[in-house]
Amino acid sequence: MESAILLISCPDRKGIVKEIAGFIANNEGNILHFDQHIDTHKGVFFARVEWDIADFRVPKEEIENSFKPIAERFFMDYSLHFSSELQKVAIFVSKQEHCFYDLMQRFHSGELNGEVKLVISNHEDMKPLADFFGVPYYHIPKNRENKGEAEAKELKLLETHGIDLIILARYMQILSKDFVDRFRNRIINIHHSFLPAFPGAKPYHRAYERGVKIIGATSHYVTEVLDEGPIIEQDIIRVSHRDSLEDFIRKGKDIERLVLARAVKWHLERKVLVYDNRTVVFD
Amino acid sequence: MESAILLISCPDRKGIVKEIAGFIANNEGNILHFDQHIDTHKGVFFARVEWDIADFRVPKEEIENSFKPIAERFFMDYSLHFSSELQKVAIFVSKQEHCFYDLMQRFHSGELNGEVKLVISNHEDMKPLADFFGVPYYHIPKNRENKGEAEAKELKLLETHGIDLIILARYMQILSKDFVDRFRNRIINIHHSFLPAFPGAKPYHRAYERGVKIIGATSHYVTEVLDEGPIIEQDIIRVSHRDSLEDFIRKGKDIERLVLARAVKWHLERKVLVYDNRTVVFD
Amino acid sequence: MESAILLISCPDRKGIVKEIAGFIANNEGNILHFDQHIDTHKGVFFARVEWDIADFRVPKEEIENSFKPIAERFFMDYSLHFSSELQKVAIFVSKQEHCFYDLMQRFHSGELNGEVKLVISNHEDMKPLADFFGVPYYHIPKNRENKGEAEAKELKLLETHGIDLIILARYMQILSKDFVDRFRNRIINIHHSFLPAFPGAKPYHRAYERGVKIIGATSHYVTEVLDEGPIIEQDIIRVSHRDSLEDFIRKGKDIERLVLARAVKWHLERKVLVYDNRTVVFD
Amino acid sequence: MESAILLISCPDRKGIVKEIAGFIANNEGNILHFDQHIDTHKGVFFARVEWDIADFRVPKEEIENSFKPIAERFFMDYSLHFSSELQKVAIFVSKQEHCFYDLMQRFHSGELNGEVKLVISNHEDMKPLADFFGVPYYHIPKNRENKGEAEAKELKLLETHGIDLIILARYMQILSKDFVDRFRNRIINIHHSFLPAFPGAKPYHRAYERGVKIIGATSHYVTEVLDEGPIIEQDIIRVSHRDSLEDFIRKGKDIERLVLARAVKWHLERKVLVYDNRTVVFD
Repeated sequence: MESAILLISCPDRKGIVKEIAGFIANNEGNILHFDQHIDTHKGVFFARVEWDIADFRVPKEEIENSFKPIAERFFMDYSLHFSSELQKVAIFVSKQEHCFYDLMQRFHSGELNGEVKLVISNHEDMKPLADFFGVPYYHIPKNRENKGEAEAKELKLLETHGIDLIILARYMQILSKDFVDRFRNRIINIHHSFLPAFPGAKPYHRAYERGVKIIGATSHYVTEVLDEGPIIEQDIIRVSHRDSLEDFIRKGKDIERLVLARAVKWHLERKVLVYDNRTVVFD
Repeated sequence: MESAILLISCPDRKGIVKEIAGFIANNEGNILHFDQHIDTHKGVFFARVEWDIADFRVPKEEIENSFKPIAERFFMDYSLHFSSELQKVAIFVSKQEHCFYDLMQRFHSGELNGEVKLVISNHEDMKPLADFFGVPYYHIPKNRENKGEAEAKELKLLETHGIDLIILARYMQILSKDFVDRFRNRIINIHHSFLPAFPGAKPYHRAYERGVKIIGATSHYVTEVLDEGPIIEQDIIRVSHRDSLEDFIRKGKDIERLVLARAVKWHLERKVLVYDNRTVVFD
Repeated sequence: MESAILLISCPDRKGIVKEIAGFIANNEGNILHFDQHIDTHKGVFFARVEWDIADFRVPKEEIENSFKPIAERFFMDYSLHFSSELQKVAIFVSKQEHCFYDLMQRFHSGELNGEVKLVISNHEDMKPLADFFGVPYYHIPKNRENKGEAEAKELKLLETHGIDLIILARYMQILSKDFVDRFRNRIINIHHSFLPAFPGAKPYHRAYERGVKIIGATSHYVTEVLDEGPIIEQDIIRVSHRDSLEDFIRKGKDIERLVLARAVKWHLERKVLVYDNRTVVFD
Repeated sequence: MESAILLISCPDRKGIVKEIAGFIANNEGNILHFDQHIDTHKGVFFARVEWDIADFRVPKEEIENSFKPIAERFFMDYSLHFSSELQKVAIFVSKQEHCFYDLMQRFHSGELNGEVKLVISNHEDMKPLADFFGVPYYHIPKNRENKGEAEAKELKLLETHGIDLIILARYMQILSKDFVDRFRNRIINIHHSFLPAFPGAKPYHRAYERGVKIIGATSHYVTEVLDEGPIIEQDIIRVSHRDSLEDFIRKGKDIERLVLARAVKWHLERKVLVYDNRTVVFD
């Protein structure tokens, strides 16, 4: 079954739901999901509507045009997607394997619905696993001097492969503002702390030092400000005095994996809307 | 601000959302929440729609009539409520205080939106607390012989006070089928296990004996089959070999309180739909 | 059954467990709990030992003296307690009732093992509940000018009643360094965030603004640095875009209650050791 | 650093800790962990003691003999292990990949401390991954007729490789009593429900049907009674009406992975004691 997905945000006012639902019903579409949210403080309406287009009277390629008058009337920010479109994904890794390995298994099993077109890394360590899954692996070393050059190479590869989504699977390099701007709300990072606690480097060390009883992981879209992008998902695990710093790091890996995988899944299923440096997630 | 709330379930088909949203928009209502769910296996549509009726053109008392044609066309099961209507609540308790005390504090602070009209107990222990909160307390002892008679007294009191919802706050008595029928989906119980594990008596003892690593609590609507009614909410807490049976019971109280309070809150806010011995909770 | 409890910390070296266990066994004591922990990075040994003193050959009042040679040999920081000693507790409250109500119920039901000797508040709101439980209530208003004077009154009351532990049950006033010094590691506060995220005022507002997906609460000993004392316990609850700021605050109350109650329970049961601004909790 | 580990259970009585600690201290051992537990209802003492044997006066191969007199005096069930001994592991899989992939990555990264000597499966699907990690893969089909013969083959392989621990990573076959007896408390299974809810087949289907709000996974030692062996670890994840049966299954995989990995880790680190169909886990 193929479905169309509309993601919408606009100023809230009367009649929006009626118009959207009318557009679908009048054209013989069958709604599968209608998720809606209103930020009453800011007066903003959000929706994710998914409908079966088997009997839809408007041909697929004309839906966008056909919906435009409604979108304009309500000053909507919107995007239209189809369940049949597989997003093209690039994974950036460093030396840590746990998130990368976990993601590859999930893509392989079909749990994550997308095509991993390439893997980029500043190290060679993860190449064998990429090979195992038959995904091209590009080793692009990075240091202070060659950063611009390296990013240029990366951007070229991303362009060549028509990449829709970049996943930083514990990629320990900071991307330039320029790079980020090219993939606004399309770069997902996993930070190994419960943000905004412990942004930046060595969060487990600092969590251990502070004596917290819970550690966390945070998946967010990357912005030009380090670890301050819109949060997509967070989760936690308990620790105690019995846990050493090494235990913090090991336990943390389990939640890093899960939190990153959930964020990627929701993004690929077009369930995330970004607004005001926050996310609406219609999970 | 006063709002109207429609709870709807009906066979799924095209155009339902359009009709509901049209009814509201055409009469100048402003939708606050539109929660919808489709059980695709069974082909059933569920919705909870809440809208501001400040400018609604249909007078409050005529809304139901005015909506009826739509309801009939789509074979809807539906009910209409208003945020201004306070539900009348009866709490049944036995000797255990934790849930009762917790509920009274939540009603008192306004977190739970309803009026506790009376407390019924087969013991006298909880009377002082009911007195403190100024709620009438009826001591109706129960044993095998007088059960019918006792229930008759209870039903009379419930009728006199126009009770909408009964909360069994660790009330250790089984209600008759007749009694339950009179308050179908309006009696909320808290069971001290993660159902369907350990239904019936002494669940903590059995959980301890089995050596589980997690204990739970379950809030559900009461049906004629013990501990098998539709589940509204569940939660859990970790235990270990370090926990004695007494620790299981003590830790369990914390989740019993929370799970019961959440279920009651959602019920009072008209967020629960029952279908096929399961619940849809638009939390 | 009466038991003795030894809390010990000292530089780690060979033979400590043998000496402690030998002291107990040689005097016919029966160990109930022997919890031990070694911070290998810092080379510190911690233990909590509890034993039945029914047949103990050393009379209760001589145990401390009798143990002293061992303590000195190993340079132990230690304290000796008896399960029969009820700690005297003062609760400080402001206008928020949820933690206060919860604590009173737990002390009343015997779940928390201590005597609430008095309640101190800068407001009168909580007096009726204190009255209900028969606990003296002292209304001591506080403002910028009278703070020193107010604290003097409080300290006097605490001294008169021989208070062992102060619980700040959402008491929204900052205590002076002098005050804190008098009750080092004996003042437990509940902070309504997952520290070190959002220290200081209005943490829920800031969590909402940041768009976090999880909120938390932290119970810690009060030190002169605001919200930076040793953490005893933390817990969290999930939130989503569906939750308003008011929902954050309401959901947070449930974890504030639980986290504070657990920290108080562990403290009263002599299960908490403080070291290096962190805690070892032998739960 | 090499350490020795003693796992002990015996009738509780005075002096046990003193004797164990004395044995270690008198021979110049340095205790790293001393975990102890008493089941007061049944009067049983449990301990796990780990000590650095760098300076231990008793040679490694004589420790057991040297400890025996103490063990006999206290009627101890005990076993002695060394951190340097790598346990030999066999993994049994069927067609589902998630637990198998996860385990292989954890063994590969060193998080799980053991040697995977072989993989046995009734299907060929998982062979490529076993090959990738260089682990021999044995395809032993099973059906009602050949079960005895197939198990004989398996037992032979396990013997040849000197296997210490069998992990059933979603291996969907029931082992015979004979087989289980040969590996008492050394076969770890993952069951995809929160036992004792939904033992047996298709637990997610039944959980979905029952309308639970939480699903779980349980790792346990295999006994001759299906899904009734001693529980090592359990964990849960929330579900709602929004989750389809497929979502239950997908979400469940995440906790199956984690729960199985934790149980295996604790077993390999000699942290699990079995008693009375329950476990003491010194995590």
